[in-house]
Formats: sequence, C-alpha cells, structure tokens
Amino acid sequence: MFGTRLAAAMEQHGPLCVGIDPHEHLLASWGLPASAAGVREFALRTVGQLKGSVAAVKPQSAFFEQYGSAGVAALEETLAAAKDAGLLTVLDIKRGDIGSTMGAYARAYLDPASALAADSITVSPYLGFGALEPAFELAAAHGKGIFVLALTSNPEGAEVQHAVRDGESVAAAIVSRVRQRNARALESADELGSFGLVVGATIGTAAADLGFDPSDCGGPILAPGVGAQGAGLAELRAVFGDRALSSGQVLATASRAVLGAGPDGLADAAAALNRDLRAAD
Amino acid sequence: MFGTRLAAAMEQHGPLCVGIDPHEHLLASWGLPASAAGVREFALRTVGQLKGSVAAVKPQSAFFEQYGSAGVAALEETLAAAKDAGLLTVLDIKRGDIGSTMGAYARAYLDPASALAADSITVSPYLGFGALEPAFELAAAHGKGIFVLALTSNPEGAEVQHAVRDGESVAAAIVSRVRQRNARALESADELGSFGLVVGATIGTAAADLGFDPSDCGGPILAPGVGAQGAGLAELRAVFGDRALSSGQVLATASRAVLGAGPDGLADAAAALNRDLRAAD
Repeated sequence: MFGTRLAAAMEQHGPLCVGIDPHEHLLASWGLPASAAGVREFALRTVGQLKGSVAAVKPQSAFFEQYGSAGVAALEETLAAAKDAGLLTVLDIKRGDIGSTMGAYARAYLDPASALAADSITVSPYLGFGALEPAFELAAAHGKGIFVLALTSNPEGAEVQHAVRDGESVAAAIVSRVRQRNARALESADELGSFGLVVGATIGTAAADLGFDPSDCGGPILAPGVGAQGAGLAELRAVFGDRALSSGQVLATASRAVLGAGPDGLADAAAALNRDLRAAD
Repeated sequence: MFGTRLAAAMEQHGPLCVGIDPHEHLLASWGLPASAAGVREFALRTVGQLKGSVAAVKPQSAFFEQYGSAGVAALEETLAAAKDAGLLTVLDIKRGDIGSTMGAYARAYLDPASALAADSITVSPYLGFGALEPAFELAAAHGKGIFVLALTSNPEGAEVQHAVRDGESVAAAIVSRVRQRNARALESADELGSFGLVVGATIGTAAADLGFDPSDCGGPILAPGVGAQGAGLAELRAVFGDRALSSGQVLATASRAVLGAGPDGLADAAAALNRDLRAAD
C-alpha cells in the first residue's frame, strides 16, 4: 500500500518531497530550452540527482502539458525514471470529475498498465468528495495513493474552502471524508493510510480557526510551501503539530528552494532541507 | 471574442454541443479498439460527421489522457480537425491551480501557439475564483472562452457547491464573479461574454433554491445532461428560463444520445436534438 511505502521512505530519507516544476525561468537558468526536450532533460536530470536522497518527487503536470503530447511523453519518461530510481511519485494533476470521466482519469494515472501511472496523484473535490470514488477504488485495488485538496494558502481559496455546510467548513468536511475512506481501506488503525490531504505549509492558524486538525485524516499530508515560499520547521510545527511531524505524516514539498540550486547543487540543497525538517524528530 | 463567435454559431446551427467522450463501450460498439488509435479514429469521424451541423464539440480530455501521450496526440489532431471543420471547441479539462501553474495550464490550452489550443476550456474553482485569473488574462488576450464549474447535478456536488460564506452559496458566488469578470472584458453589455459557467441541465430547482439565476453570469452556460442523461427542452426551460434559452445563452451538451447513434447515424441524431432544443425560440 502507498501509505506504508511512503512512511518507510520518509523514515529512511526524511520528510522532503521535491516538486519538479520546470518553469521557463528555471529552464533558462539551467541552460535548457523552453520546449518538451528542455522539460524532459530538466526532469530526468533532477530525478538522477535525487536518486537515493529523498522519499518522493512531485512532477507538476501543467509544466509538461504546456508542451502538448510531446511534453506528456516527457512526463511518461520522468515517471518511469523516478520508478527506476526508487523515488515515490506524487503526480500533481488536481483532476476532479464525475462517474466514468473520473474513472478514465483514474485509469490514466493510477492503473499500473498506463504509461502515465504514478504512485499517487492529487485530486480536486469541487464536484464533491463522493465524485472521486472511482479514483479511490482503483487506487485501493493497486495500492496507490491519493491526496485530496483541502486547505490551501492562497488567499482566494478561502471563498470555497472556508464556506460552511451543516455547521462544518468545506475543508473540515474533506478531512472527515478522507479519514472515513482510509478507515474503509486499512486493516490496522496503526498504519498510515494511503489517502491524504493537500494542506499548505503556510496556512498559519487557518485549520485551527476552522476547528479541525489536518492530521485527523489518518493518511499523509502533502504540504507545499517549504523553502522559497516561506515555510520551515517552525511553520510546519505550527500548522500540523509535533505529533504529526514526528510520526512522519507530513510530506513537505519544496520546488524552487531545491531546483534553483541548479543541476549540480540540487542534491545538496535537498539534503540540507531534509536535515532541517528532520529536526522535528 | 469567443462569446460573439459562439453566439453566431448557435444562431446558425442551434444550441447543441456534442460531447466527444470515447468511452470503451462506445469504441466497441463502433468496432474500434480501446487504444489511442481507436480514440483518434472515433473523434476524427465524429468531427467529420458533425461538420456544418452543430455549433460546437466538447472533447473530454480524460478519455484521451487515459491512453497517455499517444492519446493526447489524438486530442491534438481532434482539436485541429474541429478547427478545420469550422466547429468551435470546448475542451473539457476542469483544470484549476494557482499562480504560475495555472499560467502553464492556460498556455497549454488557450495559447494559439500550443498544439492543444482550444476555443474554450472548462476550469474548476476549488482553489478560489481569483486563482483562475492567469487563465482569464490569457483568454482575454487571445479571444478565448472559459467555462467555470458552478453547480452540477451529481448529488455529491452539494457538499461543496451549496456551502455558504458571507451569506452566499459557493455556486452563487461563482456566478457573481463570472459576471464581474465579463464586465471587465466586454465593450458592450449587449454582447455575450466569453466567460461562462458549467451548470447541469438536470439540477432542477437547485439554483433557484440557492437564490441565484445562472443567466446573470453574462456569458454562455454549458449545460451537460441533455438526451441520454434525461434533460430535454422542458428541463432546460425549468432551470434556465425562456429568456436565457431564446437569447442563445445556453449551450446544451449531449454525448451518448448522439454518439450512441453510431458513426453513420450521429449527424441525424444531432440534427434532431438541435431541432428539439430550438423549439425554445
């Protein structure tokens, strides 16, 4: 199961997940063209450099889709290379649809037979948590993981995520639903579930203000915003608490802080961040 | 501008948009393989048959992504073929992200230089309406359209879309935001805006119960659920009102009701549906 594999990888390497976000300006600073070939080279070099030093990588699909089918082919190669390198993949796609369409997205990204199969994906619940069920079913069948968008740090997110129904915020309801979905899939309550959340590392007191604790989801929490975006150990501790951090529930994601160090410096930058974030133990 | 082009095409052909959803069972009934080649053949035949008889087609990206980069290449060919056939495209991708990532999605699907450029796309606002701004900016620059998910007919959708903030439901707030965004982009209030909504044709009284009128968005309303999923003219009238229907604001989407007629029957099925839906005039 994904949760178990992720927990083991984080225990070994630390809580850092490196986002593979080949922005145009990063490609330029690496001396690579803004093209599918440039993105492919960028991503494959990043994977090669990180082999054996981090638990997971998070390719951002948008930066591959931007170059059309050739960019998507580069994403296929990136996922295959990460697998060969022993790096778990969180494919950041934020898909969300209903019925057979959600089923098609699940097959695209969670069926081991697909060229785009990752170890886990991010999904978006605007159409309701229950609409995502085809993805949970396929993930459970193949031991894959899912991170559901819950509470993000961009200010505009509040207009949806803080809205209230039946006395509970949208974000809090997502946490409850993920906890329930993990309970259905897990054999033991001691295991880390395979279904988790996306919660910004820089949300400050937002979850507490809304009256919920993200760590109640029973699965991993993908926390973007570490490093260049401002979050360090203190911010993670404030949002998620010591217990969630020391139990290895928080997968902290950094992109620019690592990638900006360039192809020759990124492994050291990742190791340094992992050390800093491990101080939570 | 997309709104103007769409209004003219609907005036000429009628309000029907045909969804290109190459489900596995449809591929089988057309005698095509469940593969990128099968999806390509299915989509290109559909476009060829519909040339000159409908305003728009709506390829569902999930059914192409399911076959990896080869499927995405088939989507590129489908979009190019639709353009050559004079059919407007609504690419159903339901993307939604923040900042530079949203910008990358916008460039992928709205920049005319992209191999995946469509006339319009669907987007998902879980991260907040404001987070979608990079897509609105690029769409405005290139005369493209955007349909924002607002209120859908699947029962699970209510837990997010009906939630309330500052006395207004999430769905109602989306309608206000789209209206404001159209007002910023339009030169005349008489024009149909290029930014619209996705509102299910089978939502019944849900919008009215939440106290808003989808047609207030000032742009087109993509209304899935016509035909096989149960909605006809009466249902559209009940949800959107006669004024929105007769003014050509509602782009009614059918997939199975048309595609299920097979490659030789689908043009007739589409023409019949367009006639039925035009009775609103």
